[in-house]
Amino acid sequence: MNLLMKKIKEDGEVLSDSVLKVDSFLNHQIDPELMSEIGKEFARRFQDEGITKILTIESSGIAPSVMTGLQLNVPVIFARKRKSLTLINELYSSTVYSFTKQESNEISVSKKFINDDDCVLIIDDFLANGQAAIGLAEIVKKSKAKIAGIGIVIEKGFQEGGKNLREQGFRVESLARISSLNNGEVSFY
Amino acid sequence: MNLLMKKIKEDGEVLSDSVLKVDSFLNHQIDPELMSEIGKEFARRFQDEGITKILTIESSGIAPSVMTGLQLNVPVIFARKRKSLTLINELYSSTVYSFTKQESNEISVSKKFINDDDCVLIIDDFLANGQAAIGLAEIVKKSKAKIAGIGIVIEKGFQEGGKNLREQGFRVESLARISSLNNGEVSFY
Repeated sequence: MNLLMKKIKEDGEVLSDSVLKVDSFLNHQIDPELMSEIGKEFARRFQDEGITKILTIESSGIAPSVMTGLQLNVPVIFARKRKSLTLINELYSSTVYSFTKQESNEISVSKKFINDDDCVLIIDDFLANGQAAIGLAEIVKKSKAKIAGIGIVIEKGFQEGGKNLREQGFRVESLARISSLNNGEVSFY
Repeated sequence: MNLLMKKIKEDGEVLSDSVLKVDSFLNHQIDPELMSEIGKEFARRFQDEGITKILTIESSGIAPSVMTGLQLNVPVIFARKRKSLTLINELYSSTVYSFTKQESNEISVSKKFINDDDCVLIIDDFLANGQAAIGLAEIVKKSKAKIAGIGIVIEKGFQEGGKNLREQGFRVESLARISSLNNGEVSFY
């Protein structure tokens, strides 16, 4: 997606060979017009999959997911990172390890919002090691719903997540796929 | 806003005389079409204020804010609930007490995203005791930007937050203003 790659080139900050900061348009400050275009692109790529729900994770997955949901005319569910202990029997949960933050988070979704006849599109802002996407996929599997695919805004293609998910048979659609952040420069596949 | 009040009546769950659960369209599962209409309504109400930025708080404020930002063609910033300790000099912070969760959260925004020539619209999903809105307003004040007003999706008008904010001189626009949740029934002003 050219508009997104241009934005990453112009406004992304390469902090190291593995860290790209995009807090000026995706992770902290959000560019709504760009999110709208991202929503249209995800919708175009997955329009024939019979999607009934979008599943993402708080917080940075919400904006691109809601714009995609608007295009596909389906609800968006965001997994929460802290579960309400009183509701434990009513939740699908999984554990997600963040290499960036070096901590594990339990993520959870209320059982009432995903059913076995749903066809779910998983969306997230970043794909690096794939832990968040795997955790979301585990939640969908527990609900016995179908997984239509995984939509990623920015994939760090030089890390293992995308490869692992594709080997597991998931359709992964990344709108910007980075091949390298070496020497302070963003390169795409 | 009639569409929102209808949705609250139909899909909101009154858990007690003070607790309304709207996790089927706002707080956990999100209705993108409703968020789009909410965005249009906030934009209509604040269109003459010269707004340059929208400020909200993760996670449930993001969807209505991004839809409003799309209409007003301005960026959205979401305050984070945990601050990155390494960046403390680069953040505007304030402390927000949640009566629901009975805990305090430090919220913060990167200084680079709000300047003294900005005119900021604060948006949040709920207004009850007003702690989140006050915390967001404190952050804007620290940046010396102007506060255009506060847009709230659902105000619990029987609690003190809205009254306090209006007495402080803020323009508060609530799209649904609840007068009572007594006897399991939602009533609006």
